[in-house]
Amino acid sequence: MQVSFTSAEVAVLVQSKASRGATTETIRGLASLARAEPGDLSFLGNAKYKAEVAATAASIVLLPSDYTGEPRANQLFLFVDNPSVALARLCARVEQSLWPKPAPGIHPTAHVAPGAQVAASATVGPLCVIETGAVIGDRVHLQSQVFVGRGARIGDESWLMPGVVLAAECAVGRRVRLQPGVIIGSDGFGYEFVQGRHEKVPQVGTVEIGDDVEIGANSTVDRARFSRTVVGEGTKIDNLVQVAHNVTIGRHCLLCAQVGISGSTTIGDYVVLGGQAGVSGHLTIGKGAKIGGQAGVTQDLDPGAFVNGNPAIPLQLERRLVVLTQRLPELFKRVDALEGRPA
Amino acid sequence: MQVSFTSAEVAVLVQSKASRGATTETIRGLASLARAEPGDLSFLGNAKYKAEVAATAASIVLLPSDYTGEPRANQLFLFVDNPSVALARLCARVEQSLWPKPAPGIHPTAHVAPGAQVAASATVGPLCVIETGAVIGDRVHLQSQVFVGRGARIGDESWLMPGVVLAAECAVGRRVRLQPGVIIGSDGFGYEFVQGRHEKVPQVGTVEIGDDVEIGANSTVDRARFSRTVVGEGTKIDNLVQVAHNVTIGRHCLLCAQVGISGSTTIGDYVVLGGQAGVSGHLTIGKGAKIGGQAGVTQDLDPGAFVNGNPAIPLQLERRLVVLTQRLPELFKRVDALEGRPA
Amino acid sequence: MQVSFTSAEVAVLVQSKASRGATTETIRGLASLARAEPGDLSFLGNAKYKAEVAATAASIVLLPSDYTGEPRANQLFLFVDNPSVALARLCARVEQSLWPKPAPGIHPTAHVAPGAQVAASATVGPLCVIETGAVIGDRVHLQSQVFVGRGARIGDESWLMPGVVLAAECAVGRRVRLQPGVIIGSDGFGYEFVQGRHEKVPQVGTVEIGDDVEIGANSTVDRARFSRTVVGEGTKIDNLVQVAHNVTIGRHCLLCAQVGISGSTTIGDYVVLGGQAGVSGHLTIGKGAKIGGQAGVTQDLDPGAFVNGNPAIPLQLERRLVVLTQRLPELFKRVDALEGRPA
Repeated sequence: MQVSFTSAEVAVLVQSKASRGATTETIRGLASLARAEPGDLSFLGNAKYKAEVAATAASIVLLPSDYTGEPRANQLFLFVDNPSVALARLCARVEQSLWPKPAPGIHPTAHVAPGAQVAASATVGPLCVIETGAVIGDRVHLQSQVFVGRGARIGDESWLMPGVVLAAECAVGRRVRLQPGVIIGSDGFGYEFVQGRHEKVPQVGTVEIGDDVEIGANSTVDRARFSRTVVGEGTKIDNLVQVAHNVTIGRHCLLCAQVGISGSTTIGDYVVLGGQAGVSGHLTIGKGAKIGGQAGVTQDLDPGAFVNGNPAIPLQLERRLVVLTQRLPELFKRVDALEGRPA
Repeated sequence: MQVSFTSAEVAVLVQSKASRGATTETIRGLASLARAEPGDLSFLGNAKYKAEVAATAASIVLLPSDYTGEPRANQLFLFVDNPSVALARLCARVEQSLWPKPAPGIHPTAHVAPGAQVAASATVGPLCVIETGAVIGDRVHLQSQVFVGRGARIGDESWLMPGVVLAAECAVGRRVRLQPGVIIGSDGFGYEFVQGRHEKVPQVGTVEIGDDVEIGANSTVDRARFSRTVVGEGTKIDNLVQVAHNVTIGRHCLLCAQVGISGSTTIGDYVVLGGQAGVSGHLTIGKGAKIGGQAGVTQDLDPGAFVNGNPAIPLQLERRLVVLTQRLPELFKRVDALEGRPA
Repeated sequence: MQVSFTSAEVAVLVQSKASRGATTETIRGLASLARAEPGDLSFLGNAKYKAEVAATAASIVLLPSDYTGEPRANQLFLFVDNPSVALARLCARVEQSLWPKPAPGIHPTAHVAPGAQVAASATVGPLCVIETGAVIGDRVHLQSQVFVGRGARIGDESWLMPGVVLAAECAVGRRVRLQPGVIIGSDGFGYEFVQGRHEKVPQVGTVEIGDDVEIGANSTVDRARFSRTVVGEGTKIDNLVQVAHNVTIGRHCLLCAQVGISGSTTIGDYVVLGGQAGVSGHLTIGKGAKIGGQAGVTQDLDPGAFVNGNPAIPLQLERRLVVLTQRLPELFKRVDALEGRPA
């Protein structure tokens, strides 16, 4: 961290409601409770770590209002509604210092084809390629070595990091962040089996990414066979996730790392998928459903369903079956005994 | 879609054998039955959606010969042998309009090392790098920001999309499509454990990709320790798939997204792997075997085997075990009763 | 292979202790026992292939000291302590010929920002981007189209292959190899749910990659929320692996392809993770633990633990439960019989 804060500045930034103790240290770093040193700020974001507060060397600790312990010497407790949200406010302030807005303009090493429209307030970094007919909105940042295909569109204030590929005709909303290596608009995986060979079904649709979406490093979103693959407003996708052709993902979903969604599946708003989970094709996942890590979903899910396992079943049942399966050695012995077999 | 067709043009393109009804609309889009609007063409590719035909607003619907319903006003039914194949023909025609053949030549921003051979009919897009000794065939298209390593070879009419890396000495056949971000020829994962450290086993082999192969976005194919990693003719690989060193994949296989094949495994022709499936190393998978999504294959498979689960077992048995596992609560109660325990 | 060796040169390179037979062939290739032809060298690295030694056409075979068979005509057996290690020595020699050290210097098509420090002995290949404040050590090789962000640091003799992204402020040790498409320092996946929307928690930490680490193609390592994500010295990571924010991986670990490690988990030294395994967040995995392929780890693991399955449990128990689960049809029949039901 290359910025520093006094305790008074921190108190204002985190919207602290009460405090206990005091520190003369200037805050120059952020760290977990266990690793913090004097000069660091820390926080209690997960009750699991409550016992670590008493021993932390952090100079400032952000705590929930109901925390009852006392600070050490030269240590300040700041009480806030939600320590994680408070920390996020502080981090946002740090982020502004660390990654200042780039200056507008097109780097001389970038290749912008005739017929592309780039807003005067946009930044096109080194060695980017923008093909004809593409439209780049206000204050968009194409960081470095980005590819924007023919006729693709990028909404205002979006940030495409190094190595992102946005293929022809695909559209990205406003304030979208695409992490490095994201591919939007690769061909969907569609073939017809004709006379012993897989004949390609041309994929002539597009991809539409809503406002405020974030997509993680090296994730892939395929273009539709025809019509559109859709990622809804506010949805957040982690690294190495696969979204197949003609999928529709609702608004404000969370897809953890290495999730895979098969073709033509529709996912409602506020759905959460744990890491490495997979969803079969042509399914409908209801609003607010929760899918556990590594789960394999093979059937439609009702709104609010919470499933786990492969094939995925309701969490309560899955937990019970895991326990009973671990008791199989005992059950076999009990059946042996009922049959009069020796132990 | 930026092209349009009259109903007569469509009938010829899809090789229609019979029709019912008529439309005055010009076709300007393709859409699913449920989403189609007047001016769209749709199709019944999966019997699951049969009930949607009667309600679709599509102006033209491609149907199998045995479909018995009647079209609405200003709606044309075209009967074909296989609606999906018929649609693919139409899409191929659209694709030609959408992605016209690029003009041959080397973009001034590309870097082509002395000693590389590039066919006069090939297209080398902006910011590509071609190292010495590489050989680029006729009508090859390196779209943008592609890397072709020393001594690598690319067969006629292949298309490498933005950000593809083809490492040194690796070879790609004819009419191959590598989607954006594909890596061919990264080092295999090989180490020897010597005195508490993993010593690298240099990977000095290559990769050989057959004719008519397609590989999905951000997938990786490692170079062999020595000799070759092989992907056979006509095989199609989806996004984010891992093919380890010294693997041999047969002809006309399908590997769905996020599949992983461990080192030195041999996969026969016409094998199908569902999404997120994994195959252990040093195995032999027989011709035409089918492996379910998320399955974990730990043993050789006979030709034509159909397996599921982890460890993967024959599908019929796996289905039965899933059902019986879900009946474990009942079985425990029955054994309780046999033992005279209260319910 | 573009180099050749006489049998005497091979004997010295592999540190052979004894021999049997002789060959007049010059060695021009390396191949497996089954595929080798005259002029090839092969080896017995895995006892599974012992029966193939008698039939191999290889001109030289590297064998363990206790192998008792006789060579064919014009065939040389060389006995060594560890045939795989011996082969690695030979391959290292081949690698030096195949991938000679590049000449130092900055390619004219690279973009190096003012304020970046590049050692005079480093090689910066075509179309690389190095941002201000970055520090590139001695004999570092940035191969082609690499991105090095603001303030990032790369230790001596590291090799970043085509398309690698090393984001701002992240640090890579000495002798590190990053395969093509690796992303270091993408944002961690962190949001707070506020008023129906996922608000981004800025990720202002960094990534620290230790000496002698290798990371496979298209793998991703996220920057910490604050503080550091760490990959320890000598650890080797395969392709398409996800390492989340604030993870600490120890020294000399092996992470096979498509593994995923969730946020804030700590992994001890010498841990091995099989392909497609996943580890939940905020866990501690003890030194030397082994985690099977596709396993899902949801709890802390003791040092030396060996687990499998999802949820992961000790291997012995997991193997037993798999066997008993496959005997469920029999168990149901036995309980039917005890209850007096007809078969």
